[in-house]
Amino acid sequence: MSITQLSDVAGLALLPAGLQDGLPPDAAHEAALVEQMIATLAGYGYERVKPPLLEFEDSLLAGPGEQVAQQTFRLMDPISQRMMGLRADMTPQVARIAASRLGRAPRPLRLCYAGEVLRVRGNQLRPERQFAQVGAELLGSDAPAADAEVVRLAADALQSLGLKSLSIDLSLPTLVGGLLADLHITEDAGRALRSALDRKDAAAVHAAAGDSAPLFDGLLRAVGPVGKALPALQALDLPEAARREVAGLAQVVEQVAREAPELRLTVDPVEHRGYEYQTGLSFTLFATGVRGELGRGGRYAAIGAQGVEDRATGFTLFMDTLLRALPAVQRRKRVYLPIGTDPAQARGLRATGWVTVAGLEPVADPLAEAQRLQCGHLLQDGVLHEVENE
Amino acid sequence: MSITQLSDVAGLALLPAGLQDGLPPDAAHEAALVEQMIATLAGYGYERVKPPLLEFEDSLLAGPGEQVAQQTFRLMDPISQRMMGLRADMTPQVARIAASRLGRAPRPLRLCYAGEVLRVRGNQLRPERQFAQVGAELLGSDAPAADAEVVRLAADALQSLGLKSLSIDLSLPTLVGGLLADLHITEDAGRALRSALDRKDAAAVHAAAGDSAPLFDGLLRAVGPVGKALPALQALDLPEAARREVAGLAQVVEQVAREAPELRLTVDPVEHRGYEYQTGLSFTLFATGVRGELGRGGRYAAIGAQGVEDRATGFTLFMDTLLRALPAVQRRKRVYLPIGTDPAQARGLRATGWVTVAGLEPVADPLAEAQRLQCGHLLQDGVLHEVENE
Repeated sequence: MSITQLSDVAGLALLPAGLQDGLPPDAAHEAALVEQMIATLAGYGYERVKPPLLEFEDSLLAGPGEQVAQQTFRLMDPISQRMMGLRADMTPQVARIAASRLGRAPRPLRLCYAGEVLRVRGNQLRPERQFAQVGAELLGSDAPAADAEVVRLAADALQSLGLKSLSIDLSLPTLVGGLLADLHITEDAGRALRSALDRKDAAAVHAAAGDSAPLFDGLLRAVGPVGKALPALQALDLPEAARREVAGLAQVVEQVAREAPELRLTVDPVEHRGYEYQTGLSFTLFATGVRGELGRGGRYAAIGAQGVEDRATGFTLFMDTLLRALPAVQRRKRVYLPIGTDPAQARGLRATGWVTVAGLEPVADPLAEAQRLQCGHLLQDGVLHEVENE
Repeated sequence: MSITQLSDVAGLALLPAGLQDGLPPDAAHEAALVEQMIATLAGYGYERVKPPLLEFEDSLLAGPGEQVAQQTFRLMDPISQRMMGLRADMTPQVARIAASRLGRAPRPLRLCYAGEVLRVRGNQLRPERQFAQVGAELLGSDAPAADAEVVRLAADALQSLGLKSLSIDLSLPTLVGGLLADLHITEDAGRALRSALDRKDAAAVHAAAGDSAPLFDGLLRAVGPVGKALPALQALDLPEAARREVAGLAQVVEQVAREAPELRLTVDPVEHRGYEYQTGLSFTLFATGVRGELGRGGRYAAIGAQGVEDRATGFTLFMDTLLRALPAVQRRKRVYLPIGTDPAQARGLRATGWVTVAGLEPVADPLAEAQRLQCGHLLQDGVLHEVENE
């Protein structure tokens, strides 16, 4: 073996930053989690769609896609000579399918999806440049029951994986903007107020709010567990539009709490960062002790079948965070079958959940061979023997 | 609605040639087929790996990857400033993982995978520029039992989908090259002979083979169902190396026929096109009445853990052909639940296999609403009613 060959092999292991090989048993575990969640979504009538990895950048980066334009790899289509993008997010693709190919399907339309997305750069919270998304979109309804359904559905999908101590942070990202307009707050004062709200700086909020100080002070205090935050929010003297938003939030909270009382719901009515394309009730999913968000969702404006805007809500779950949140899995029980084992017997073992590892040549010591191949069992003369593995 | 908006929606539906949206129920069907086949492979001890969609072109296009270099989309990694390729085939990636990250795992090493691949251009047989592959690789054994295992495994994975009338065409793509060398046939005569064999032109084969005409005439006749072709091949007066290849083929045929007697096996010992990187027994899978191959596989040289070559065999199945080969699926049974339905009742229905479609607002005629939402059933006052759908 030459040094060149050795360095060849080392070179082969090198992947671009943020890209990685999924190995056993993690790769199988991830796929099983994805299919489990999709099965949950399907149970609620969400039908699977599968958009392509590449499409023309005009359609990929339209509407909500604009948010990830900077993060999207581009390449030239040699056939059409037009630029294509490698998807960095699947939501815009699903909204496109709903508006075009499924434009005539009855509303509300429920769709779900799972697939890989690619990003030009990772960041500190998410170093991965490729990760899988699983999500659902509910198009064509602005009923609070639609918001409640997607919140509960996201939680149900995560709970189906055995994930416990889930918390959901609800937000109204358009609330503050609406208030600033309704209360005729100047642009400069509005900018100062927004920045103070973002920093949760009570003194600065109070100073910037002028006559509306009592309202914004109250808004800043209406943060935390719903049991406390929602009544505080409802007690505020809000203009009509904001009052309607809060009433909608209360209906959603009420329905989710009734159907899934174990969920920990919190409210932050002033949070809007990361919800730049959201047009109403939005939410982020966390699990206690897990770094980063498990997923996020909310209302957005999708282009509708008739060119008008569809009233849509939905969510996306991130497999990279989810895999960090869940315990590692065990390998399935493996049995070594020496060469010459009756094929019917092998089939029988597989049918009852065994993984069969066939010997390809005769070996002197089948027990040692089973051990070497990491099998916990050996079949010999039709009898299963346990193999001691360290 | 303006004309601009209408054309916007039409524009959204336009995808690059060879790329498409998977719609309900096909997208769910494809995913279920993939997981079913992976489950079959896992039952034989093939553990799943998941290589990234993008990697450096040096590693992606090394060895067997060279074959698809022309078909691989390239893009620049802004982080490393090196060129990356979007995978056009997963086999080279799996071989890379086996050699690098799993270099110390015991041999034989069994790996499987499923994922999307992208190609720069489609062709007449496969217009798709994106399709899913499912495959298995068995590394570190040159025993005929290894070849037999992968042939039977490919068939088992396909049969697990309910695919019937499978036929497997076995080939020895290095046989003719070895014969030309062993029989000291000149390069020009060899080229003429190879071309005549490719065209199955008996007269031209006879003319080009010179002294070796009886052997090559016989080789050309040893094509077809194994029961006839294999004895014809064994009866030929072959040089030692070729005789060993044929003996290996016979052992594989014997083992596959014993374990899966229902498979239709054919032999074409002179076929080598499409097997350019194969180094021994190779095969293509077909189903009666289905255009195109379902998959292909065979022996190849993988870079080994120690820089030496690993003795590898494996196969890849193509989801685009498979979806054409299988009957379309029916939607699962859907039940419409008017708003206010007891959540516990809804959960109970989902737990017993129903798809529940929740009403989001009160409706005057729940039966008509169930019909409009393509539900075959309606739950009213705790009772399931059948809904007539045209």
